[in-house]
Amino acid sequence: MKPVYGTVYLVGAGPGAPDLLTLRAAEILKRADVVFHDALVHPDTLLLAQNAEKIAVGKRCGKQSTAQRFINKRLVDAARKFNTVVRLKGGDPMLFGRAQEEIAALRAAGIEHEVVPGVTAALAASAGLGISLTQRGLSRNVVFVTARVGVSEADHDWAASAAAADTAIIYMGIGQAALIAAMLAARGVPPATPAVVVENASLPQERRFPLVLADLPHIAELGIAGPALIMLGKVFAAAKKVSIATASGALAALS
Amino acid sequence: MKPVYGTVYLVGAGPGAPDLLTLRAAEILKRADVVFHDALVHPDTLLLAQNAEKIAVGKRCGKQSTAQRFINKRLVDAARKFNTVVRLKGGDPMLFGRAQEEIAALRAAGIEHEVVPGVTAALAASAGLGISLTQRGLSRNVVFVTARVGVSEADHDWAASAAAADTAIIYMGIGQAALIAAMLAARGVPPATPAVVVENASLPQERRFPLVLADLPHIAELGIAGPALIMLGKVFAAAKKVSIATASGALAALS
Repeated sequence: MKPVYGTVYLVGAGPGAPDLLTLRAAEILKRADVVFHDALVHPDTLLLAQNAEKIAVGKRCGKQSTAQRFINKRLVDAARKFNTVVRLKGGDPMLFGRAQEEIAALRAAGIEHEVVPGVTAALAASAGLGISLTQRGLSRNVVFVTARVGVSEADHDWAASAAAADTAIIYMGIGQAALIAAMLAARGVPPATPAVVVENASLPQERRFPLVLADLPHIAELGIAGPALIMLGKVFAAAKKVSIATASGALAALS
Repeated sequence: MKPVYGTVYLVGAGPGAPDLLTLRAAEILKRADVVFHDALVHPDTLLLAQNAEKIAVGKRCGKQSTAQRFINKRLVDAARKFNTVVRLKGGDPMLFGRAQEEIAALRAAGIEHEVVPGVTAALAASAGLGISLTQRGLSRNVVFVTARVGVSEADHDWAASAAAADTAIIYMGIGQAALIAAMLAARGVPPATPAVVVENASLPQERRFPLVLADLPHIAELGIAGPALIMLGKVFAAAKKVSIATASGALAALS
């Protein structure tokens, strides 16, 4: 007889604010038996999983992390023991979430699984700024990209995609901002291209820094510790008008 | 004395399924006095706005639509009369949602406003396929784009951004699929590039058609009537394995 396994839900926790979770995600968390979550998921989101064991497996740049293969194995093992297993990821699972490796492991083990999409950080940052990522006459497309800083030709492809798009959102790029700026400049992106760095999008401690591309090598001075996006493109020329006071202060300090 | 106006919320209704709405959006709908909604918003989502007058203003390709300037004016007028005004848009307001024009009108009129992000259709389609838009070694970036089919150089920029990205998601392109395919081919995108057309992402009537770029000129035969995405890139080579029976049937009929 075939053993009966549970279902694994790969769930997007959204950009940070607990009420930017979807209704479906909230419902699944309520009946979860176990939740494997990224380090950055909001504590109030985890509280929704009132009956579940919560296990932090989340990766965070430069901090301790659980190896992906070990996470895959734990998901499979949990589905053999529990009905409802949740893998809770920041943002959306299918965008920079390493979901494919987990899906492949679940498929190989014959475990039922379902992906619940979430609000990705770029959309929350855009909402906070009051600046649409696409705009008539200014931007007809937007690329979401992670930068790869290296020496091979392939390492430079990300910069080509960012340079070709009207609006570019760089995820997880703060630590490499100087190299990112240099690689984009090498692709012909003008130094005066408007840029906004948004830290902790959608959270009370959200900070927005309206800059230009040429400022990126200096952003270490901003003391960004939370998850952050680098947003680039003409649409962000409007950012100064709507940015918060702290951002203006930081901008002044930079120049 | 300054008059007291209400607040206008530009709210993302998500990709289609009513439970892919955010908790925040649901809470705002519950206390809404009036809701101006796109034609494609799910009826169950509108039911959440139990005390609100619901007004369809939504645009739908080729069907009757309300002019954008008229919508802007109605939002301003409503905020002068009501506390909580909701502009409910399919997907996310800041991605192909014409939000900037509404924000500009609200700003000009001194009306408080807030954007509530939503799950965009591409992420729901990706979840349904079980194929991540980014993947280690295959795709480090994804562009969301609308195609512009015309004769000027600027009309071709969208194709450059799609060609430069590892994964490309074309919104609202079904009616122009043949021209889209030709413009991408002219940019060097190989005819055998994996493509998936996803109609009604996240709804029970969702259909998925795994194809290649060269098939796009024939997709009129699929009878797509709902909102649909054209998804392109190496990651979708895996689509055949996970696609639904109707898609395979339709694919067979095509070839």
